[in-house]
This record gives sequence, C-alpha cells and structure tokens, in this order.
Amino acid sequence: MNKLKVSLVFSSDIGKLKADIDKAIPEIQKTISEKQKSFRISADTIKKNELFLNIESEGFTHTFIPRIKNLMMPNISKHKIGIRSYRLIDYILEIDLEKKPKEEFSIPFTKKTEFKGKKVILTFGESFDTTQIDTGVIERIAALAKDKAAAQDYEGKAEYNSILWTSKEKKLAYKDDPTEDMIKRKWVIQGPGQGQWFHTPNSTALFKAMETIAVEKILKPLGFKEVIAPKVVPFEVWEKTGHLSGSEPEMYFVSLPKSRDIKDWEDVIDHYKITKKAPIDKIKKMLKDPMGGLCYAQCPTIYNAFSGKTIAKESLPVLVFDRSGVSNRNEAGGRHGIERVNEFHRIEPVFIGTLEQVEDIKKKLMETYKDIFENILELEWRYSDVVPFYMQQAGGFGADKQDAKNWKGTIDFEGYLPYRGTRKDSEWLEFQNLSVVGDKYTKAFSIKGQGVELWSGCTGIGLERWVATFLAQHGLDKKNWPKGFLKFFKDVEEIKFL
Amino acid sequence: MNKLKVSLVFSSDIGKLKADIDKAIPEIQKTISEKQKSFRISADTIKKNELFLNIESEGFTHTFIPRIKNLMMPNISKHKIGIRSYRLIDYILEIDLEKKPKEEFSIPFTKKTEFKGKKVILTFGESFDTTQIDTGVIERIAALAKDKAAAQDYEGKAEYNSILWTSKEKKLAYKDDPTEDMIKRKWVIQGPGQGQWFHTPNSTALFKAMETIAVEKILKPLGFKEVIAPKVVPFEVWEKTGHLSGSEPEMYFVSLPKSRDIKDWEDVIDHYKITKKAPIDKIKKMLKDPMGGLCYAQCPTIYNAFSGKTIAKESLPVLVFDRSGVSNRNEAGGRHGIERVNEFHRIEPVFIGTLEQVEDIKKKLMETYKDIFENILELEWRYSDVVPFYMQQAGGFGADKQDAKNWKGTIDFEGYLPYRGTRKDSEWLEFQNLSVVGDKYTKAFSIKGQGVELWSGCTGIGLERWVATFLAQHGLDKKNWPKGFLKFFKDVEEIKFL
Repeated sequence: MNKLKVSLVFSSDIGKLKADIDKAIPEIQKTISEKQKSFRISADTIKKNELFLNIESEGFTHTFIPRIKNLMMPNISKHKIGIRSYRLIDYILEIDLEKKPKEEFSIPFTKKTEFKGKKVILTFGESFDTTQIDTGVIERIAALAKDKAAAQDYEGKAEYNSILWTSKEKKLAYKDDPTEDMIKRKWVIQGPGQGQWFHTPNSTALFKAMETIAVEKILKPLGFKEVIAPKVVPFEVWEKTGHLSGSEPEMYFVSLPKSRDIKDWEDVIDHYKITKKAPIDKIKKMLKDPMGGLCYAQCPTIYNAFSGKTIAKESLPVLVFDRSGVSNRNEAGGRHGIERVNEFHRIEPVFIGTLEQVEDIKKKLMETYKDIFENILELEWRYSDVVPFYMQQAGGFGADKQDAKNWKGTIDFEGYLPYRGTRKDSEWLEFQNLSVVGDKYTKAFSIKGQGVELWSGCTGIGLERWVATFLAQHGLDKKNWPKGFLKFFKDVEEIKFL
Repeated sequence: MNKLKVSLVFSSDIGKLKADIDKAIPEIQKTISEKQKSFRISADTIKKNELFLNIESEGFTHTFIPRIKNLMMPNISKHKIGIRSYRLIDYILEIDLEKKPKEEFSIPFTKKTEFKGKKVILTFGESFDTTQIDTGVIERIAALAKDKAAAQDYEGKAEYNSILWTSKEKKLAYKDDPTEDMIKRKWVIQGPGQGQWFHTPNSTALFKAMETIAVEKILKPLGFKEVIAPKVVPFEVWEKTGHLSGSEPEMYFVSLPKSRDIKDWEDVIDHYKITKKAPIDKIKKMLKDPMGGLCYAQCPTIYNAFSGKTIAKESLPVLVFDRSGVSNRNEAGGRHGIERVNEFHRIEPVFIGTLEQVEDIKKKLMETYKDIFENILELEWRYSDVVPFYMQQAGGFGADKQDAKNWKGTIDFEGYLPYRGTRKDSEWLEFQNLSVVGDKYTKAFSIKGQGVELWSGCTGIGLERWVATFLAQHGLDKKNWPKGFLKFFKDVEEIKFL
C-alpha cells in the first residue's frame, strides 16, 4: 500500500467549509473504492485555504488526485470557492521489482530511497515540483527504478548475437592491417584531432567508389531520394529520439558564443595575438551553455524534418538518404585505424511507411546488400540478428523471429578482418547494419501517414567500415581488387612527398 | 628612449665579482654603442647572485639582453660562475603611432598603458613571464598596440571593393524571395537549430546539379583531385591559420566529455529519463574545456595535412578539393533565407604551387567560372577586387594591380538578387570568391616545395549561394531554367504532405 499526504489549495480560506468537506470525504471514499478496493481517504486538518488529506491505495496513489478534486467540487462550488492547485506533502511509493537488487542504487528527485527485499520504497517530500506530476514524472521515476534494478542483471552480459548466414570462405591473400599500409603510402595522414584522418586523393577515390556503389546500385534502384539534413543537433531533437538515455559519453558537445560583437572578444583576441595560443580559460567564459552536439546518427534530424506532418498516401513509403556531412563520436580507447574513428562518413538511408512497406523495403535491402557484398566487393562476411540482453528478457526476440511479420530489431553485417586473427577466434568488423524500429521515431516525432500507421527503419552505410573491410581482405594493390569493383573505381595519381 | 631594468641571475653568489663586473660594463657599453648609438648601460646593484642593470636604447631594449650576457661571460667564466637566467624588473617601452589615437585602449600583460600624443607607453613589471621574451612576445605586444591604434582609423569603414567586370543586363522574369517560395513548396523545411534548413529531394537535386557542374565542369577539367579533410578543428590549427585573430564571435565551439564511463553520466541520464529534458547544468559539469570548433573554412585542415612536408616537384601544383562535410558559422542577426545561414555546404578547392603555377590556376579558374556563370547558369553577375581598408593603407592594392604578376588578394563574385531591389541600389550577393594568399599558409604550416618557394590560394564554392542566386534570377519553375543547366539537373518527385 502506498501512502500519500497531499494538500488541496483553495482559492480562499475554507474554515467555514468544514461541514461540506466532512460530508464530501465519505462520498469520495465510496465512489472511488467501488472500483479501486484498496483506496482509502481521510481528511487530516484544515489550515487557512489548505485541506490536508491522507490517501492510501495500491498502485500510483497520486493519480487519484484529479478525481478527488472533481468529486469535491459539487460540495464547495456553491461557496464560490475553487481548488487552485495542490501540494505534495509526503508520498511513500513502494515499487515491486522482479528480484531483490544486487546493489542499492540512487533515484533523483526523491527525499529517500529505501530497499526492502524485492521492493524499492521511494519517498517524495514537499520540495517535489508538483506541477510536473501531470506530465507523468512519478511514473517515469518508477520506471527508472525498475530499469536500474533490471540493468544490474544484464550488466556486462553481451548482446545476443545470432549468426543467420555466412558467406563462403574465400582465399584471401592479404593479412596485414590495411591502415598501416595506407599510412606508408600516404593514402591517409593523421588528422589534427583525436580519431581523425585526412584522406589524400587515393583513399578518397576508394571512398568515392564505395559511395557510388551504395548510391547507384542500392539506393537509387530501390527508389531512395537524396536529402540534406542538418548536422548540428540541438538537445531538443535528442530529447525526442532518446539519445540522451546513454549516448552522452560518446557525444561531441557544441556551444555558441555569448556575444557576436567582436569588441566583447577583445581580451581573447589580444591574448591570442600576443601568445599565439588559444586562451582557453578566457574563451570558456565567452561561451553559452551547450546547445546540443554534433551529428551522432543522421536520422534524428531527418525525422525532425517530418515532425508533426502527415505524409500523403501517394508519397509512402518515404525513402530518403543523407550524405551531407560527417558524424562524430568520442571513441576514446576503442580507436583503431580507419575502422574505429571519432569522425566518420556515413550514408544514412531512412525508410518510413506502413508495416508492409517497411517489411518489403527491408527485404529488398537485404537482397541488394547481399548482391553487392558477394558480387561487387567480393567480401567474406556474415549477418546476425542482434538483440540487446534486456530486450531478450522482454521475450519474443531471437533468430527464429527474424523472418516473421512485423519484425523489429537490428541486423548486423560483419566482415572478416584477417589481420585480427582466425575466422573462428577473431572479432569480425560490423561494417553495415539495418534496423527496423517500429513506431518508435514516427511516434516520438508525431509523423503520421494518410490513413495508415507508420513504422520506420534506417540502415547506415559507414564508408570507413566498407573500405576497412574491403582493404583488409583484398589489400592495397589495385591489381588484386575484384573486377566488378574496379568498374566503379577511378584511379588517381598519388601526391608525392620527399 | 626606452628604459629597461633587468636582473641577470647567476649560478651562485657574485659578491666577489664586483671588480670584474665593473670592468665588463664599460666594455659592453663600448662594443654595443659602436653600432647602436643610443645604447646606454650601467650597473645598479649586486644582491647575492643577482646583478641589476639599467639599460636604455631606442627600439626594443630587451633585445640587447642576450648580447650583454655573451659579452659579460669572458670576464666571469674564469670564476666558474654562469648566467642562469634573467628577470625583468621594470621595462618602459615607448611605441610611436601613425597618429594620436582617437581613444585610449588596453593592452594585456602590461603593468601600465599610457598615452602621450602620438605615443603609447607600455610598462612591464616583475610579474611579466620573462621566459616568453625569446619567443617574441614583446614584439607581438608592440604590434598589437599599433594594430589597435590603426584599427580605430578604419573601424566602420567598408572594405575597398572595385568592380572589375559586370555581365550584360538580362531579362529576369522572377522578382520574389526564392526561399519564401521554397518553403511554400516544401523544398526546404526549417531545421532544428538556428540557421539550418532541411532540404527535401527537390532542393537537394538542385544542390546536386550545382555540385556536379562545379566538379565536372570546373574542378576535374582543371586537374583538381578530391580529398577528405577533417571537420572538427582543434584550436592548434586555428592558432596557425590566424582564425583566432577575430573569427571567434562566429565560431561553433566543441567540448568533449570528461568521462567516457557511462556510470559517471548516471545522474545526467537519470534526470533526462525522468524529465525528458536535457539537464544542461549537469551536462556542463561533465564537459572538458573546449578543444576547438566546427569547420569554419575548409582549408585549415587541408593545409594542416601537408604540415612540415616537402612536396615533390612532379606533384606541383597540388590541386585538391574537399566537399566532405558542412561548415558552421554563428550568423546571428544576419541570417536570411537559404543564402545567409549558420550551416552551409561548400566545395573548397585549394591550390598550392610556385608563384607562376598559382597565377596560372587563378587565371584558368577565372575563365572557367566566367564560362559557367555566363553559359550554364546564365546569371547576371559581376566580380570585384576586394581589399580590406587596413590593407589599402599598406598600399600597392587596388583594381589596377589585379592583373599584375604576383597578385595577392581576393576576388568576390556577386550576383544580382532582384527581390532585394534595383541593380543600382540593392546589395548584390557574394556567391563565390577566389583568394591568393601568397605564402601566408604555406609558411604558417611549413609546407615546402622541392627547390621552389610555394604560394597558395583557395576558392570556396558555396552551394547555398549558387542556388540562391540562380533561383532569385530564374525562379522555381523548371521550365524557365536555362537549357544548359537542365542537362545537369535530375528532376525528382516531391514528397507530398496533407
């Protein structure tokens, strides 16, 4: 049983209303407990314009407040007094967990968080911002407590990764780390920041060939149309996509200047002109709070463009792709070569349509990818069904469901990198993926279809990953590259250095 | 006359060296004043291991310190004592200005800044970091004082802009602001951040046509090769290019997370999950100091890739271009339509070569641009020689020099926008420029050519500006577009919304 002490705040003194209130309370008790047997309400005290109530119930006791207010009104409105607001005085909420948590955890916005067997008991006090209650904040706090308990269970456990198909083993002549070779041949030069490369014309020609294959052989034949999507992403967009639920450690954050008047920057500029160094402490003081970050995935600003719109039936499915800028992720320790970098180049196709249309485009994409990876890039590769551990718990996922109707999930395409070791023991490189996210984003951005429910999906084509897999298997000598690929590759002369 | 009181710090007590020092000082006076008549030196006191000297001279008195140390050594080295360092006690430096400054100004790192007619008098005290003196910090401070005085003179004055050529007047049917029309037709949708647009397939097709023209008709025929240049720019790069001398108010600054461990972000994530808002104050505390900013111009990271390298003769001129990501500038109040935005798409060609090669490529670029703007885009346009006011003062610039050998400067290409008013009275849009920067960047990045001196230049092709000029003159109806242009344009079906 959860216990809530709440004060209803009236528009003026209610000392003279005691009789009406004493009459109202049993009526409210009777009405609500007809359906909610556990519900108990009693008046505590009246102080000036406030009525203090003690309420008990199973479930979310606070959700009865609007009903209590409504049921109270007939008894008091004749006095020309209304209920202006309410204040939460004390609220003890018991949440049942699947099992006893391994470790206690903290929950913000509470006065107290206690653990008792399979229960976590949250206490909210007077400092809790009552105006947020109607937006579902208590429910989200309870969900967070359940999430945190569940997360202890799958922490450290790998995602579920079921290999669905593997290409034939190929004779691969090349065994080295291709980035080492690229550096030697000056195809790439270390960039000025962490995990950045400058690609000279040779490497760029290779990237362009991959891009041409992706656009001309996959996207255009399937009807995808190019768009240009914004690349600086305000927090408001990530609030909708949910990227703020855990991508923060990998984000590049962006701040704008406090002033655009160069006079306000005089001290910074003077210091730079004298020391020839950026005066970082002084610059910091001239910046506004961070407003968002750099493109992490390209799809959020694509969905955002369709936000609140209803797409005409004739324009469904919407098949678009963006390749108008880089993505940045703080890869920190995981950086390696050209395949695991902070700044990378991705073509991001997004598809929005009915369940059938999404299912259909997913099938066609799978077929086309297979054709490209087998017959043009001639890769040794495989694809897997990926389910994070916590989703397996929810049931209904796994390899057997992959061909089912209304499939939601992610397919990872992995390439074998000989330099990492044997096929069996080495980690293959994820060089492509394909996700169907159901109505997650169409709902988050209120994107509607004319008379139909919309699902969506995306399938980022990471050019660094394609090139890294291709070179790791075929090497840097063009004479060893597949003939089908060479049709798309335009050779260029290298820039020579002494 | 400038006055410097400095202490030479010896490796041990010099009480017993008084006689040697008394002998050395007149010798030093004699030797230096042979060429520097104004030079005066006298010993003040000896305290433990420090010798305090009073020095006077015209020009930078501090530059005599190394020589004084060297001339002192023969007299004292027999005592097995050396000069370890020196401390600046008091330094009064008078700087002659062109004219009396209109207003007094501040100079950092000084104890006092005084104004007296056409002079500014800087006083440095004991807190000045002497170790920086050898890097030229005093000279840079003096230069800053002169710059600030000169800047008062040209402040508010327009750059010098001499029109060199204007195309024939054309019959232009369209008179509206094209962005308004683009919004109506859903060619563009407002982006989530300031000055960002999402381009739907129609507008994107137009951008792609411009890109194809630039690459296929200008860059490839002239021998430019594509590269991929990093887009997040660490301050170290802008320290070399000089962008920190005044571009700060327009920059987008970037900060990385303090920690990549998701546990450290628990509080941020919990708050987001509960409130569905980014907890900006908490995020701010999790960020490192800013490390740089977003691509402002594309050339800095291109030059940086060639930093310290010597380019083989056979690879000169180096002709490269980058189109791998967006640029961001904080346009604030100046934003308008698609032509003045914060986030934009530019193809940036850079050319590095001998003076003759740079001159040659500049000439060819001018010819090719003219052909494209006249015969493919059929624009009404002109080009001008642009010289910032402060450079005019330096002399030797102006329209008459534009065809001269060893020309350095910027050519602006401007298009007439009918919606802004008459040809005569309205501001034309700069839709293209071309700069030859001499050895500014090759020197800043120590880029050398095999046996030759290198110059460089760049010529940003801003796709937003090309499209804005084109649409403002020809309108959005494809039937009115020039035939030569339509060859490059691939029409797409619009996405329809209810």
